[in-house]
Amino acid sequence: MAYELYYWPMLQGRGEFVRLALEEAGAAYVDVAREPETDGLGLPALTRILEDLDEPRPAFAPPFLRDGDRVVGQTAAILLYLGPRLDLVGASEDERIWTHQIQLTIADMVAEAHDTHHPVAVGLAYEDQKAEAARRAAHFRADRIPEFLAWFEHVLSRNGGTHLVGERLSYADLSLFQLVDGLRYAFPKAMAAQLPDHPRVAALHAAVARRRRIAAYLASPRRIPFNEQGIFRRYAELDG
Amino acid sequence: MAYELYYWPMLQGRGEFVRLALEEAGAAYVDVAREPETDGLGLPALTRILEDLDEPRPAFAPPFLRDGDRVVGQTAAILLYLGPRLDLVGASEDERIWTHQIQLTIADMVAEAHDTHHPVAVGLAYEDQKAEAARRAAHFRADRIPEFLAWFEHVLSRNGGTHLVGERLSYADLSLFQLVDGLRYAFPKAMAAQLPDHPRVAALHAAVARRRRIAAYLASPRRIPFNEQGIFRRYAELDG
Repeated sequence: MAYELYYWPMLQGRGEFVRLALEEAGAAYVDVAREPETDGLGLPALTRILEDLDEPRPAFAPPFLRDGDRVVGQTAAILLYLGPRLDLVGASEDERIWTHQIQLTIADMVAEAHDTHHPVAVGLAYEDQKAEAARRAAHFRADRIPEFLAWFEHVLSRNGGTHLVGERLSYADLSLFQLVDGLRYAFPKAMAAQLPDHPRVAALHAAVARRRRIAAYLASPRRIPFNEQGIFRRYAELDG
Repeated sequence: MAYELYYWPMLQGRGEFVRLALEEAGAAYVDVAREPETDGLGLPALTRILEDLDEPRPAFAPPFLRDGDRVVGQTAAILLYLGPRLDLVGASEDERIWTHQIQLTIADMVAEAHDTHHPVAVGLAYEDQKAEAARRAAHFRADRIPEFLAWFEHVLSRNGGTHLVGERLSYADLSLFQLVDGLRYAFPKAMAAQLPDHPRVAALHAAVARRRRIAAYLASPRRIPFNEQGIFRRYAELDG
């Protein structure tokens, strides 16, 4: 049976980390909220589950994944669940925990990138927190981008330069691709200045984009373009 | 061999979620950075590993746990690793993933609680971001505390009211205790007003505090008091 991914239909957001894993594996999946309401899908199908008080394991927020009777929420937990099933993680416990640790560090940077445009409240519009956003983004560009990228570069370097874990692709590699892709969209000037200092990170980003299934996905209408509703937003004033 | 926990010695922080699991299980562990430097421990032992470029699986930040040759970082990944070993998670994959999903949701709220006093940058002092903190904290109290607590209440309610997962204690229960304990410290007025609306969350917090080993731990010098260097800080102006 096809996996069912539930995520907001108009943005990449955290759902994109799951989409990339499903696409790389060539897995059958339905991106439920982007399918027609007339088929019983679409956004109402997402909100119906989110608001269903009888759901045994309710997610706090999208994304969540349905696999038959199972529902798994939280991006990193979804990838923990999918990793072995999609052959996107090593077999040993050591490799699985280490891959997950890297994923959680990527998730930390994703949350910080989000908060550059929403430093006060997720419930407020960007326009209502622009002054705070400018301050936060300046520190993110000056301090956090270099700190995180240096750590990813070091992890890649320790492991031979091509993959974050072991000798083949893992879901963490896909997630780092997405993180770098998003940062390049949101902070084109800062990333143009900084990414060359982290050549293995840049090379991994390019290599993932060239993978057959990923390249086909990125060129397809299934890949929602970056926009100013997602995690990575291009506001020139936040790019220094 | 005893587990070695590496975390900043002067605050509960994210290390506390690991400490509580180890304490509840009665596991042998060394809180490395709090032990004497003259024994080769203390803060220098932590920074030595953090800065060791030859460390095979370097952590981006504390806490990290050493178990023999293995080093695991990221709080939720440490608990994922320890859960089965300390008998603090169910045996089935379903229970383990669900427990982890809850832990990640707790981690999300912990990060948001932290950012109430550091909405601009972790590298700046609170005094340099007080205006932004006041705005963020007001939204956190008004919107996020009720949203998260309602979700935990619902999960408890769906599961019979006593534990978050299954019929016995898991590391997620211990982490929810710590989250509520921290919120009560940081936002005494807001929590006094709101916690009664979530009676199962309040009852779980009280029940965990009464557990034999947890009660002994909380009364011991091993429990660092809450203070204004940790995640949960009591600044009256942020409590409305």
